[in-house]
Amino acid sequence: MKIIEGGVCAAQGFSASGIHCGIRKNKSKRDLALIYSDVKASCASVYTTNKVKGAPLTVTKNNISDGYAQAVICNSGNANTCNANGIKVAENTCALIAEALKINPKDVVVASTGVIGQPLDITPIKEGIPSLVASLGNNSEEAAEGIMTTDTRLKQIAVSFEIGGVECKIGGIAKGSGMIHPNMATMLVFITTDCNISPDMLQRALSGDIKNTFNMVSVDGDTSTNDMVTVLANGKAGNDEIKTQGEDFDTFMKALNTVTVYLCQRIAADGEGATKLLECRVSGAYDEDNAKVIAKSVICSSLVKAAMFGSDANWGRVLCAIGYSGANVDVNKVDVSFKSSKGEIIVCQNGAGVDFSEEIAKEILLENEITINVCLGDGNGQATAWGCDLTYDYVKINGDYRT
Amino acid sequence: MKIIEGGVCAAQGFSASGIHCGIRKNKSKRDLALIYSDVKASCASVYTTNKVKGAPLTVTKNNISDGYAQAVICNSGNANTCNANGIKVAENTCALIAEALKINPKDVVVASTGVIGQPLDITPIKEGIPSLVASLGNNSEEAAEGIMTTDTRLKQIAVSFEIGGVECKIGGIAKGSGMIHPNMATMLVFITTDCNISPDMLQRALSGDIKNTFNMVSVDGDTSTNDMVTVLANGKAGNDEIKTQGEDFDTFMKALNTVTVYLCQRIAADGEGATKLLECRVSGAYDEDNAKVIAKSVICSSLVKAAMFGSDANWGRVLCAIGYSGANVDVNKVDVSFKSSKGEIIVCQNGAGVDFSEEIAKEILLENEITINVCLGDGNGQATAWGCDLTYDYVKINGDYRT
Repeated sequence: MKIIEGGVCAAQGFSASGIHCGIRKNKSKRDLALIYSDVKASCASVYTTNKVKGAPLTVTKNNISDGYAQAVICNSGNANTCNANGIKVAENTCALIAEALKINPKDVVVASTGVIGQPLDITPIKEGIPSLVASLGNNSEEAAEGIMTTDTRLKQIAVSFEIGGVECKIGGIAKGSGMIHPNMATMLVFITTDCNISPDMLQRALSGDIKNTFNMVSVDGDTSTNDMVTVLANGKAGNDEIKTQGEDFDTFMKALNTVTVYLCQRIAADGEGATKLLECRVSGAYDEDNAKVIAKSVICSSLVKAAMFGSDANWGRVLCAIGYSGANVDVNKVDVSFKSSKGEIIVCQNGAGVDFSEEIAKEILLENEITINVCLGDGNGQATAWGCDLTYDYVKINGDYRT
Repeated sequence: MKIIEGGVCAAQGFSASGIHCGIRKNKSKRDLALIYSDVKASCASVYTTNKVKGAPLTVTKNNISDGYAQAVICNSGNANTCNANGIKVAENTCALIAEALKINPKDVVVASTGVIGQPLDITPIKEGIPSLVASLGNNSEEAAEGIMTTDTRLKQIAVSFEIGGVECKIGGIAKGSGMIHPNMATMLVFITTDCNISPDMLQRALSGDIKNTFNMVSVDGDTSTNDMVTVLANGKAGNDEIKTQGEDFDTFMKALNTVTVYLCQRIAADGEGATKLLECRVSGAYDEDNAKVIAKSVICSSLVKAAMFGSDANWGRVLCAIGYSGANVDVNKVDVSFKSSKGEIIVCQNGAGVDFSEEIAKEILLENEITINVCLGDGNGQATAWGCDLTYDYVKINGDYRT
């Protein structure tokens, strides 16, 4: 497997574009993105678990119920959620882009991200579509920009891999920032591959993967209404179609996982106001479920997050978060260490503090990628969760998001 | 019922003191508090649900297992938790104060609050006890100061009430700040009353009350290891002992609730870095449990909290928090309004935004006590939760707490 250029346009037959159409006031910010496949593609998707669901999700779910899609259109600046006519606007968006692309409106994935509760005016989308379609090309970055809200960094990746001697490619773009929490958030991820795989197996791959990837990311504990991860697989690589489990499926899963883990880390690292990527690795838990509960509890603790912002080795807060996680855990068998590119330092053994150099701890924690290792004595369960520190800027960004 | 002066010394037979003994470096900050009853008192207590429990809680639980106590000793600056000899230090503290007061060590409630994971040196406590005992008097405020950590404001209240024609008094002190979350937190509350009530009924009153009071407070979602609410009732008012449910018990419950609700609000308003008290009132929920889940979810949302800090009427975040709460709720029947002393404004009806004046909303939200009213169409369940806004100062305080 090899990291390659091209994002969602790396795989054969995919093109993309991103423009400013006028949903956002800031003209330098792209607010409409398109991903297009030359041919119909297998399509799999997972959605937010929030009971309040964005209108675009409902329309997308319906459109791709046959397992196929050919285009993704997504706007930023307005979530098209909790308003009176959201479904109609999302459906009209599908109809307009389908007409321009000469495809079936039922083959369109539609998504929106931004502020909740305001009507989405379709006029700028309608007027922007001709230029959006005209600029289709090897423009993954423009599409990635078009879906960003308070994200500060563009998130994309692509890898190549081999199935039965045939080279396949898979790539993705993502947006994250606030409201990122287990079971997905204001997170949109679009992945494209030219691997030939049936809709059923594609859905199986995605649903299996997100349990250990996107559902283990938390920025602020809020689960958004509009989260969605969608994969399109158009088969243009020419491998034998993956229709069952087996070696080819495993290879595809690994390639998918490389893309999703990378995007998870980038989403966490670019959490609203974040200065640090935090990774909590739990081992020795009673079982995998308990490991996940513990890893998430540590990553979600406001006090742990604030301590990491201050590069403060306050491991008591890690222990505290383990204690209230609800997991089956023997708190007298907990070891904790902090690790970064500067080294690793053990701060707690068997549930109690050990003498350690505050200076070395500080040096380790001043780095911008920190791993919190939690070793338990309860079993063989393992899990990893990703998050970020809690900073002044998180408060600033969210104190006045709408203005 | 009448609000009166005196805090934990309002009830007959109770005295208190608070001194600086040297656990904290800052000499102007009291770090050791004592509450004493002339006679043995019925004692009831509730503790954190965190699996990691402070050593003092274990010792206290054991001491008061017979339902009686006569003194409360509490230090701030060190939580005496997750260290090697916590139990021993807590037991020795009980022995030392019992000797000085000439009471049974088993009649001592011991508590600690502060940083987790460092050994607590008993020397300053030992050396401070003579002056702590010598200064016992009508000093509720000094005791309240002695238990504060990052609290900025002293929290105390007392009320008088009548049971069978006899005047009784009840008063309390509290500390809160960070780590305040449903099922209690780094929260210590000590309540004293001269009402004559059996240990069983006192425990019943307290356990019933906290479900709607302290367990509905959240500052940051972290549940601390050292939370405890303790009530001492010494019977000196001379009313007939409350041994069963009935009118007298109900009257006592009301007086207790007046004290606890007030302390909840003060704890929430003084959450770490908080500038505003938030109250979320839910009505029309499927049942009381669902109402509680929703009220807590709204109060705990980092995004709602940050919006309130910015006086931003971003009701979509309220709806979002309702949606991911896990409660049984019809999201198309949700009404939301914001209220303060400047008035009330409806911002969402039937799950969708309504036109409202942003100017009036801003004026309402600029106040420092905000009520978020959530009216549902699912049943008759009601609940109230208390919290605070998320601010720069929360991050600042917790980014470098130990230094």
